[in-house]
Amino acid sequence: MPNIAITIKTEEKIGVLDDITNIISAYDINISYAHLFIEKNDLGSINLELENPGNIGSLIKDILALDSVKSVEKHGALEDIYGKRIIIFGGGAQVSQVAMGAITEADRHNIRGERISIDTIPLVGEDEISEAVEALSRLPRVSALVLAGSLMGGEIAKAVANVKTEHDLIIISLNMPGGITKIADLVVSDPIQAGVMAVMAIADTAIFDIKKLKENKF
Amino acid sequence: MPNIAITIKTEEKIGVLDDITNIISAYDINISYAHLFIEKNDLGSINLELENPGNIGSLIKDILALDSVKSVEKHGALEDIYGKRIIIFGGGAQVSQVAMGAITEADRHNIRGERISIDTIPLVGEDEISEAVEALSRLPRVSALVLAGSLMGGEIAKAVANVKTEHDLIIISLNMPGGITKIADLVVSDPIQAGVMAVMAIADTAIFDIKKLKENKF
Repeated sequence: MPNIAITIKTEEKIGVLDDITNIISAYDINISYAHLFIEKNDLGSINLELENPGNIGSLIKDILALDSVKSVEKHGALEDIYGKRIIIFGGGAQVSQVAMGAITEADRHNIRGERISIDTIPLVGEDEISEAVEALSRLPRVSALVLAGSLMGGEIAKAVANVKTEHDLIIISLNMPGGITKIADLVVSDPIQAGVMAVMAIADTAIFDIKKLKENKF
Repeated sequence: MPNIAITIKTEEKIGVLDDITNIISAYDINISYAHLFIEKNDLGSINLELENPGNIGSLIKDILALDSVKSVEKHGALEDIYGKRIIIFGGGAQVSQVAMGAITEADRHNIRGERISIDTIPLVGEDEISEAVEALSRLPRVSALVLAGSLMGGEIAKAVANVKTEHDLIIISLNMPGGITKIADLVVSDPIQAGVMAVMAIADTAIFDIKKLKENKF
């Protein structure tokens, strides 16, 4: 059974999420993603993804019965729409070149029915990048991280090692000075190729298993 | 007061989110973002962002007192780490060129202390792109959407109009056939410039207000 996503429109009111999780919990259904915000029209929008919920007709009816709930709408999960995410961190010139390689390669896979997203933030500084790496563990659907800079080690390498203990994440680094190349799964000199290989490494439509490579530096 | 993010590690167990929202609701604190997943080690990770929670020492103590909770950690909000997001949808060659313009420009702003992310998915097809546009309303921190294709209208234009009623979102379109250019805030012929202008339009460190422009086609 696939995951199902629902959007619940509510009156803006503290506690309404609690009312809703009460109901979902009673159905023994797991919530795998939630996102809440206030719309321009002051309605609250609560977006939930439910794991293998089966027939949710009666669940939706129970949620609609709450006083503060205006509507409930069902749609596909974000995983099915935006797919796996490759995240790119690093300095300007290189981060855009890695992105170009990755986007061009993702286009070739997505046109055959896959869904791969390429998400970037240009960032410099050991503290800034290591904080961004740590926070990856709070983002959904991340499959690979590409580090696109000219000097990375220290706290950044520590943060990468830390994230790897919690997540199955492929780490690709440009070839550069600093400890990051010691702990990356793959080290690539050409930024375009680094982006292409990141997509190849996570794509279902590619025959490329980085665990089977005899060397990891190109 | 800034938002505060907490990560709660729990035993994997349906209903634990409900126990936690019960407690937060009792403190009259609003949850603006939530993300949940199971780690490699089978612990559950619940990531919450709390709106202006004030001193949360006693809230954290109450959450820690739950049987299924292993740890609670406090950190900065994703807004402060990854900042505003520009989302780019469209076909390969153009989507990567828009991204290159946007990433290069975002690098220039981020180096002065801003945080702007550039997130892309290469996608073709009216159904596919309109579904991706609709789903934007379920993503956090989206400030601008750039449509990078050569023919977009119909359902895509409808989806864009729909998302605009719910969110304050700047819409930039490449110059192309199809109804999308009629409802975009800005129509740009050069994909690099479209990416640069998307960043200028949302950046705090730029003097560029698209609402003040006398024409919207370049």
